[in-house]
Amino acid sequence: MFEAKVDASMLRECIESITAIVDEGKLIIVEEGLKLRAVDPANVAMVSFELQSDAFDEFRFAAKETETEAEAEAESKAETEIGIGIDFVKLLAILGIGGKEEVELKLDERAQKMFTRMGSLAYTLSLLDPSSLRKEPKVPELEFPVQVIIEMEEFRRTIRAAEKIGDHILLGVDGEEFYMEAEGEMDKLRLGLQKEQLIHLTPGTVHSLYSLDYISAMSKGMSHAENITLNLGNDYPLQIEFEVAEGKGKVSYLLAPRIESE
Amino acid sequence: MFEAKVDASMLRECIESITAIVDEGKLIIVEEGLKLRAVDPANVAMVSFELQSDAFDEFRFAAKETETEAEAEAESKAETEIGIGIDFVKLLAILGIGGKEEVELKLDERAQKMFTRMGSLAYTLSLLDPSSLRKEPKVPELEFPVQVIIEMEEFRRTIRAAEKIGDHILLGVDGEEFYMEAEGEMDKLRLGLQKEQLIHLTPGTVHSLYSLDYISAMSKGMSHAENITLNLGNDYPLQIEFEVAEGKGKVSYLLAPRIESE
Amino acid sequence: MFEAKVDASMLRECIESITAIVDEGKLIIVEEGLKLRAVDPANVAMVSFELQSDAFDEFRFAAKETETEAEAEAESKAETEIGIGIDFVKLLAILGIGGKEEVELKLDERAQKMFTRMGSLAYTLSLLDPSSLRKEPKVPELEFPVQVIIEMEEFRRTIRAAEKIGDHILLGVDGEEFYMEAEGEMDKLRLGLQKEQLIHLTPGTVHSLYSLDYISAMSKGMSHAENITLNLGNDYPLQIEFEVAEGKGKVSYLLAPRIESE
Repeated sequence: MFEAKVDASMLRECIESITAIVDEGKLIIVEEGLKLRAVDPANVAMVSFELQSDAFDEFRFAAKETETEAEAEAESKAETEIGIGIDFVKLLAILGIGGKEEVELKLDERAQKMFTRMGSLAYTLSLLDPSSLRKEPKVPELEFPVQVIIEMEEFRRTIRAAEKIGDHILLGVDGEEFYMEAEGEMDKLRLGLQKEQLIHLTPGTVHSLYSLDYISAMSKGMSHAENITLNLGNDYPLQIEFEVAEGKGKVSYLLAPRIESE
Repeated sequence: MFEAKVDASMLRECIESITAIVDEGKLIIVEEGLKLRAVDPANVAMVSFELQSDAFDEFRFAAKETETEAEAEAESKAETEIGIGIDFVKLLAILGIGGKEEVELKLDERAQKMFTRMGSLAYTLSLLDPSSLRKEPKVPELEFPVQVIIEMEEFRRTIRAAEKIGDHILLGVDGEEFYMEAEGEMDKLRLGLQKEQLIHLTPGTVHSLYSLDYISAMSKGMSHAENITLNLGNDYPLQIEFEVAEGKGKVSYLLAPRIESE
Repeated sequence: MFEAKVDASMLRECIESITAIVDEGKLIIVEEGLKLRAVDPANVAMVSFELQSDAFDEFRFAAKETETEAEAEAESKAETEIGIGIDFVKLLAILGIGGKEEVELKLDERAQKMFTRMGSLAYTLSLLDPSSLRKEPKVPELEFPVQVIIEMEEFRRTIRAAEKIGDHILLGVDGEEFYMEAEGEMDKLRLGLQKEQLIHLTPGTVHSLYSLDYISAMSKGMSHAENITLNLGNDYPLQIEFEVAEGKGKVSYLLAPRIESE
């Protein structure tokens, strides 16, 4: 059993952080809230998403209705969660209609449908068969030597400029400077920020090259965040962490590096 | 003889209600104002339009100049109106330039031209040969068992949501509820409004299916209206009535139903 | 040596007045500021551009570093300027990112690169080989019998309306009236302004036909100007002059007439 009420624009912000990486995925509902972990079709990027139940105006969940205490005790841990396959792109399209109203969600597990209601408008979303979805990925064990916390606006602006130059972007830390670099056939773009221009920086010497397409998509997915945390290494995956739902949700993106050809 | 002055944005609103259904048509000028009745090329939708002469800042009309009273009396009723073929899409494009100014209209019946003037900008629109236009349709005699008056914004929002789901929309009344339903391959959208959420509702049990393309176009044509009146029946045409020009004009759309295949 | 600081949106306005005619060109830097003269690929339109050094927050220029006074005296006049090939479209794209900040420019003549910096964002623009650019055109000696000064907004509005009608526009003066006329297959658009509706008019009787594509592009290039000066003749080139950078820059467009076929 899952029933909830939530601010429509807050839910939209959350779904947008997911659709930046995947169109569909398996959403896990637990007592503490919602969770998702999914990789993109090319296996290059991963999104981990968590939203606390207190981000909702109402949140009622029960994994299974059990009659007796004995039964309840007998239940395995796996039964304390519900996993449902969601077409997030479709859900986002519908949420885009409703304005800033509250959305009601109500799961019909048997019929494999999610009822959503915004005011007088009801929308029944058929769930996807979880077996048809890509498997939930394992999060690799990673250690990042360097961490940078930067204003989202500065990051986004640089990504938008880089899109006009080339296909890749180099992210690095050199001493107490964080930099982003894009090279075109003839031109070169570089953002350089000293430690004092950042919210946080671990000094070091690392850099990695990433596909700009993925970073651009991520940049849209985190457009509501004020600050983002970049975890970096040398020719190493990039991890970007940021908050959604006024701090009651957390998103983490992981992106594989590109090998520099020269 | 026809000469008039009218607020440009008001005229634009009127023309937009016509171009939602047809690109061109025969506009009838009479002493009381303007009238038009036209069907779309596929014969599925009809628009009836009326604009009172007092919606104009100036409105001067004479069907034919007659020298003597005897002549005047001899004239048949048919000669008390002028019918002119107008390319409304072209006229709308030109009105879109002029801002919120006043437009002057002046008909040159002999040359088959309509002079329009917005400030210092003059535009001469060649009239279409009325014989090249589709014949003015007869309005079928219809009786609608049920009438619903709804806020335009609520209607428009539902139509926009339905566009993301499917190609058709079901409009119906069930008891004291008015509903709109669209079904996709897997999903379903439903707006349900109780009598007290509507401006008016005749209780009943009717429903009809309509092509969403037409309703979407109509929705654009009536985007300035605050409320719209829906006249409904069972597998029956839909009639939508609304006001333009601050109540000095009336528009009525008529749309043939689709037969439900299942 | 060339180094300068300038308001980003002011520089953008200047570059836009150039890209209305050409994508790339040879920018001349002298002690007094910047200059450019270029023709479009079809040899139909020309732009002359001048920006005073005092439009810049900082402007430092030296044509060549010389060691002795004797050497300095020996230098020919040609060496008191630097000519650099610029891809203005690319430069404009980058300036579009930076908001309303100040831009720093720094020329590296040896490496043939222009460094630009907006806040923490640095962009290195490779210069174009001047020998690959079209030759700087000679300005033909022209005498214009008639001059009209008109509000840009009135001009722009008429051009936008004319775009919906046809491919050409007639500009003329008839007595004390300035007019612009576009004819479509069936329709006709005409703007007529009397001397008292203009800022200035030399009475006369002239008219010339021009390609609307070029005038539309020019209209975008001068969109920040309040007034524009039109110099006109009979089947003669059109010269449009206007100010940029709050009067510290001057732009002049020259457009060849079309021969009227009928």
